[in-house]
Amino acid sequence: MIDAISFNNGTLRYLDQRFLPLRQEYISTKSHQEAIEAINTLAVRGAPLIGVAAAYTIILGINSFKGSKEEFPAFFKTLISDVEASRPTAVNLFFASAKLKQIYADNFQSDTLEALFTKMTETAQKIHADEIANCDAMSRLGVDLIKTDLAEILKKRKLNVLTHCNTGTLACCGSGSALGVIKLAWQEGLIERVITAESRPLLQGLRLTAWELEQENIPFISISDSSSAFLMQRGMIDFGIVGADRITSNGDTANKIGTYAHAISSYHHNIPFYIAAPVSTIDITLDNGTQIPIEERNADELRTIFGTQVATPTTPVLNYAFDVTPGKYIRGIITDKKAVVGNYLNELKKLFEKP
Amino acid sequence: MIDAISFNNGTLRYLDQRFLPLRQEYISTKSHQEAIEAINTLAVRGAPLIGVAAAYTIILGINSFKGSKEEFPAFFKTLISDVEASRPTAVNLFFASAKLKQIYADNFQSDTLEALFTKMTETAQKIHADEIANCDAMSRLGVDLIKTDLAEILKKRKLNVLTHCNTGTLACCGSGSALGVIKLAWQEGLIERVITAESRPLLQGLRLTAWELEQENIPFISISDSSSAFLMQRGMIDFGIVGADRITSNGDTANKIGTYAHAISSYHHNIPFYIAAPVSTIDITLDNGTQIPIEERNADELRTIFGTQVATPTTPVLNYAFDVTPGKYIRGIITDKKAVVGNYLNELKKLFEKP
Repeated sequence: MIDAISFNNGTLRYLDQRFLPLRQEYISTKSHQEAIEAINTLAVRGAPLIGVAAAYTIILGINSFKGSKEEFPAFFKTLISDVEASRPTAVNLFFASAKLKQIYADNFQSDTLEALFTKMTETAQKIHADEIANCDAMSRLGVDLIKTDLAEILKKRKLNVLTHCNTGTLACCGSGSALGVIKLAWQEGLIERVITAESRPLLQGLRLTAWELEQENIPFISISDSSSAFLMQRGMIDFGIVGADRITSNGDTANKIGTYAHAISSYHHNIPFYIAAPVSTIDITLDNGTQIPIEERNADELRTIFGTQVATPTTPVLNYAFDVTPGKYIRGIITDKKAVVGNYLNELKKLFEKP
Repeated sequence: MIDAISFNNGTLRYLDQRFLPLRQEYISTKSHQEAIEAINTLAVRGAPLIGVAAAYTIILGINSFKGSKEEFPAFFKTLISDVEASRPTAVNLFFASAKLKQIYADNFQSDTLEALFTKMTETAQKIHADEIANCDAMSRLGVDLIKTDLAEILKKRKLNVLTHCNTGTLACCGSGSALGVIKLAWQEGLIERVITAESRPLLQGLRLTAWELEQENIPFISISDSSSAFLMQRGMIDFGIVGADRITSNGDTANKIGTYAHAISSYHHNIPFYIAAPVSTIDITLDNGTQIPIEERNADELRTIFGTQVATPTTPVLNYAFDVTPGKYIRGIITDKKAVVGNYLNELKKLFEKP
């Protein structure tokens, strides 16, 4: 498996994703300042991966602390605020720092610094392990759902699956969300070929997903985003599966721009289209997708590609980073707890009930 | 107006569209091999412009002929097959070569080579003049249809129109097919803003249509191709209009990859979607779109952008240049003779009846 991030003997090691797929550069560091810089410059990216990187960055910080116990609170406060400033909008980053702040608050008075640091390190490792376990759970539930939904085709042949953007190890630490499902389905002999939509403007499908599949020797082919409808018309796609950035209580799903177009085309061709995302992606406080704020990003993401100018600098561009797919176009939402099919309004709420 | 192609004193001059909008490079050549290469590499592109370029390329070829009258038939046969091989999906290319083959067939026995070549040159120039006149006719008929179809919205406000690829002067010699309709609609005060889908992989929408609209001071905004569905969901598009590479007798339309996805999204959002193309684009010999050969182009069109590598050279790519939109998704086919709405199977045939 690709080693997107790891932490051993006080050293953080990560794959610098900025140069993929053209260059695979692994960086090892004991410096929390260097790790903050890696998050800040998108050398590490993908929401779950950012959370894990932030947790380990805090551990690097405390490992560098040489002062007395009395001096630690001020040091820790500065460290946390430096880490939190590295990607101010990444919610997983705050999730990770909140967990470590809680360990600190609960144990600082009673523990020695050494004992406290051990507990914090174990917490960071648990955040990492949980992300990996989430991927495994989603993969298993997703494959089981697909086996049922596509049983008729599977009696005759293997499946061709469409995916969008990158939802694999490079984003999730574990096998991935949507790409985790695809990888397990491949291992179980269900997949003929993966079709990776390139995902303009930043080409995560063409660059990152293609690279991951190549590493895993899973057969795939890359297409332009707007080709998917035509491939469906020609019977070349059996199902689609993508990740999510936010899911509302009725199943409406915000994900990388282009997802909605794939979903409409799937619906029209009677091809099942799935979302795979951990329960933490579901925002049960929102009624529907119109309440999700949609980020508009810089025009130069379209006007330039890897620094090469393709349009004039004055070309006006509307660059929505995400779109919203209404729940009616989604055959199933595969979480780490359950693969939810059907009445999202009732079923998604149940995932948040205490047993 | 932009001078996309011209032919004077035995020299073909064309704007090399590969470098637009960053560089306006005009090429002059007397070599038919160079002209074939220009068609093949998309230095000249756009269905009607390809037809005109193919006609002039054949003229360049015969002008280079140094042999005897007896040797000409074999030379001409090779020349025609070389020109026809340059872009297999473009029906205008075959339309142009068929016209010149007819002149050859009708006059070879009776004429001197010099007299024959003069007749062929005049025919090529007439193909060019006809394309310009076709644009004007389509624009008028298209605007009239849109005024009727969208009358309710026009009572309240101006229209936002989606287009794909480039169908303007750069593609059609005249004002354009779909873009010609848009330009005239703008002149008549019907248009609020044009939305140009970038048209991956070669970005004709982002590069060429944007550039043409900027030249004409028509307000526009460029989007990634897969954004169109989301803009429709948000009520930001009132109708779509695109060109065609080949239309079969039932109204099925081959056009730049991505057209079908826009058409499905339009259909789902109840937004009219039009084709504008001259009668010469209609291949009345074909029953339906499954009979249209769809060109698969080089993988490097996705893997590299303006010479910049974005994916590994081994990344497998499926690069269909065109897709096929079934007639049922098309509200109207606007030709130079008539804007056809409804029963394409009956109505398109009538365009070919002698009066």
